[in-house]
Amino acid sequence: MEDGTVNGYEMDTPKNITIKGILSLLMESIDNNNHSRRVISLGMGDPTAHSCFHTTHVAQDAVVDALQSDKFNGYAPTVGLPQTRRAIAEYLSRDLPYKLSSDDVFITSGCTQAIDVALAMLARPGANILLPRPGFPIYELCAAFRHLEVRHFDLLPEKGWEVDLDAIEALADQNTVALVIINPGNPCGNVYSYQHLKKIAETAEKLKTLVIADEVYGHLAFGRNPFVPMGVFGSIVPVLTLGSLSKRWIVPGWRLGWFVTSDPSGMFRNPKVVERIKKYFDILGGPATFIQAAVPGILELTDEVFFKRTINILKQSSDICCDRIKEIPCISCPCKPEGSMAVMMKLNHSLLEDISDDIDFCFKLAREECVIILPGTAVGLKNWLRITFAVDPVSLEEALGRVKSFCLRHSKQFERY
Amino acid sequence: MEDGTVNGYEMDTPKNITIKGILSLLMESIDNNNHSRRVISLGMGDPTAHSCFHTTHVAQDAVVDALQSDKFNGYAPTVGLPQTRRAIAEYLSRDLPYKLSSDDVFITSGCTQAIDVALAMLARPGANILLPRPGFPIYELCAAFRHLEVRHFDLLPEKGWEVDLDAIEALADQNTVALVIINPGNPCGNVYSYQHLKKIAETAEKLKTLVIADEVYGHLAFGRNPFVPMGVFGSIVPVLTLGSLSKRWIVPGWRLGWFVTSDPSGMFRNPKVVERIKKYFDILGGPATFIQAAVPGILELTDEVFFKRTINILKQSSDICCDRIKEIPCISCPCKPEGSMAVMMKLNHSLLEDISDDIDFCFKLAREECVIILPGTAVGLKNWLRITFAVDPVSLEEALGRVKSFCLRHSKQFERY
Repeated sequence: MEDGTVNGYEMDTPKNITIKGILSLLMESIDNNNHSRRVISLGMGDPTAHSCFHTTHVAQDAVVDALQSDKFNGYAPTVGLPQTRRAIAEYLSRDLPYKLSSDDVFITSGCTQAIDVALAMLARPGANILLPRPGFPIYELCAAFRHLEVRHFDLLPEKGWEVDLDAIEALADQNTVALVIINPGNPCGNVYSYQHLKKIAETAEKLKTLVIADEVYGHLAFGRNPFVPMGVFGSIVPVLTLGSLSKRWIVPGWRLGWFVTSDPSGMFRNPKVVERIKKYFDILGGPATFIQAAVPGILELTDEVFFKRTINILKQSSDICCDRIKEIPCISCPCKPEGSMAVMMKLNHSLLEDISDDIDFCFKLAREECVIILPGTAVGLKNWLRITFAVDPVSLEEALGRVKSFCLRHSKQFERY
Repeated sequence: MEDGTVNGYEMDTPKNITIKGILSLLMESIDNNNHSRRVISLGMGDPTAHSCFHTTHVAQDAVVDALQSDKFNGYAPTVGLPQTRRAIAEYLSRDLPYKLSSDDVFITSGCTQAIDVALAMLARPGANILLPRPGFPIYELCAAFRHLEVRHFDLLPEKGWEVDLDAIEALADQNTVALVIINPGNPCGNVYSYQHLKKIAETAEKLKTLVIADEVYGHLAFGRNPFVPMGVFGSIVPVLTLGSLSKRWIVPGWRLGWFVTSDPSGMFRNPKVVERIKKYFDILGGPATFIQAAVPGILELTDEVFFKRTINILKQSSDICCDRIKEIPCISCPCKPEGSMAVMMKLNHSLLEDISDDIDFCFKLAREECVIILPGTAVGLKNWLRITFAVDPVSLEEALGRVKSFCLRHSKQFERY
């Protein structure tokens, strides 16, 4: 059974590195050395580990009320409760030049399941999908399981991590089913301008392909550019909008996401396409019915003050992040983050005497300083680092202080004579 | 766009009939005739619609406590919380001759997602899977999306819906990756004996294929045979056990299920197989973390009285079902249900003057009597009916009374001279 077979049948496993995989290896490398120091992780995009990031009681009470009403212990339609689909359609339509209908909205078990729906619905023999580099590896993993060929286009740090539109034109062919953008950006922390999003839409239209807009960090923007949903350009090119409550409401564990056809031209209203999507939802386990039932109240009653508070903490912690990194010669930040919860930092390991690359850096950092940072290799950029700044400011200061002393200790100028 | 394409790409849709699809058509056929009478559905396996089927406060309180603890708003490991995996391993091990470990248990978004995991993990080019007829159409739908060829074996009404083992031997070949059994049975209401389950295990072992044991109705047995988990025979043949809280705890909307490798021989502990399963879970949205966190308490603290109460109501309602059907000449029940929440009844439409088949019967019944029954065709048996008896006794009496008058009205002896 050591040959990866079940009953003699070859079971091919995608070779992809996963973020969780690397982070758990980094964690283990600490445990093995049983340090007394507190472990601080700047690795995962889960702010709930920090008390300063706490969801609103409006959301929590809405879920408790729905559960205790005893009305939502049964099955929901597999595409989602009608009132939940309607509420999300209205919520997203606030920022669109057209109105989404309930029929455009499909409720998913977090944004992760929305990604799978999008890729599974577009997969067919020979199809390829254009993914950003750096990106979010779940897309590569999902593409591997759904038999979609992946082609990567670069995000350009010198242009604020804008999409390399020329690369997209060079990569796309008649088998390209979609291009994916993540805005606000994970892992880069960028927020695209209206103009750049429009160019992406026009490029996709020219190439006769769809845009999958991953907006799981929607509205988490605190820089020059306001958050503009890709759906704004749905009349130029059909857009599949993926989102969830996870980040804006700080409840990633609630697994409440959405797959939305932002498509005023109605291409996705083709009865055969709708039937196919609905049947696919019949084989998915969606989110809990009582959590779905809470969504209308959550979307309607959440106070702007709660959102502003989150934005302010993220702004503050991203500033801390950039300021502290300035003190570390071997790490640089080409673009100050303006949104989401993560940023990409460039590692110049040539300034370090015994660090071979970003992976080596992160493992030695974990062992010596009990600080977890994700090596850029995990998101497609070797010798970069992805730092999650959705961390309470005190821990962030502490962690980056440890990174600084680690870098000083390993820096070439400290070589022994 | 009328040709079922997106951007000109053919999107092939499985042709399968779905239970939900037919039931909603039946519902619509009522609304179109806006009757004043109360609609009674014996179609869906969701008992929560009836106040006599109510989950225990132990379960509800455990979920509220987990949510309000503020400790479970974040991500869980994609395979599930460790304490949840451990608790389910211990729960299932109570009825096994060996101990399952946490590593054998993967938490899914209801049993539906567990079905998808099983079929997706076994799918490979050329593979086929053996499914029961009558069965649960989600398997056929899932097989279509995951590119598994389906081969059907019959369940034998004259033998208490036992598996036709000869048919299995005739159908299986070297590309057969698994055979599926649903016990207690949906749609037949049968509960397999220890001896029959052992024979199934021995047959599968002889054919070098796995058994997928769908035990979503586990422990809901009220006849001669006690419920015996297929995992009891895990030392004869590797078993994938699928289950959930949905039916036994009457919370199908909570979407808390499990995919369990009941495999003391450890075939599924092959590191490559485990890696593949774990990676697949990385692209699935699992159940909410706080619901997972409630599971240990739910499994530990639920009172036997609650289970007995459910069993007693199911027994009572299944008796009502069989007694009332005896009064209806054109419908017969070859096997009294002994478990689950549904039973298959044979329709003899030759005794009816203007009913062409089971589908015609169910649509006319819905229109004329506002009673919803699932045509057997939807589960693979033409001119049978699947009746869900997880309905409060009063509604069940009322519904079957209407079925009786419907049949009398359409019976040939009532022909006008």
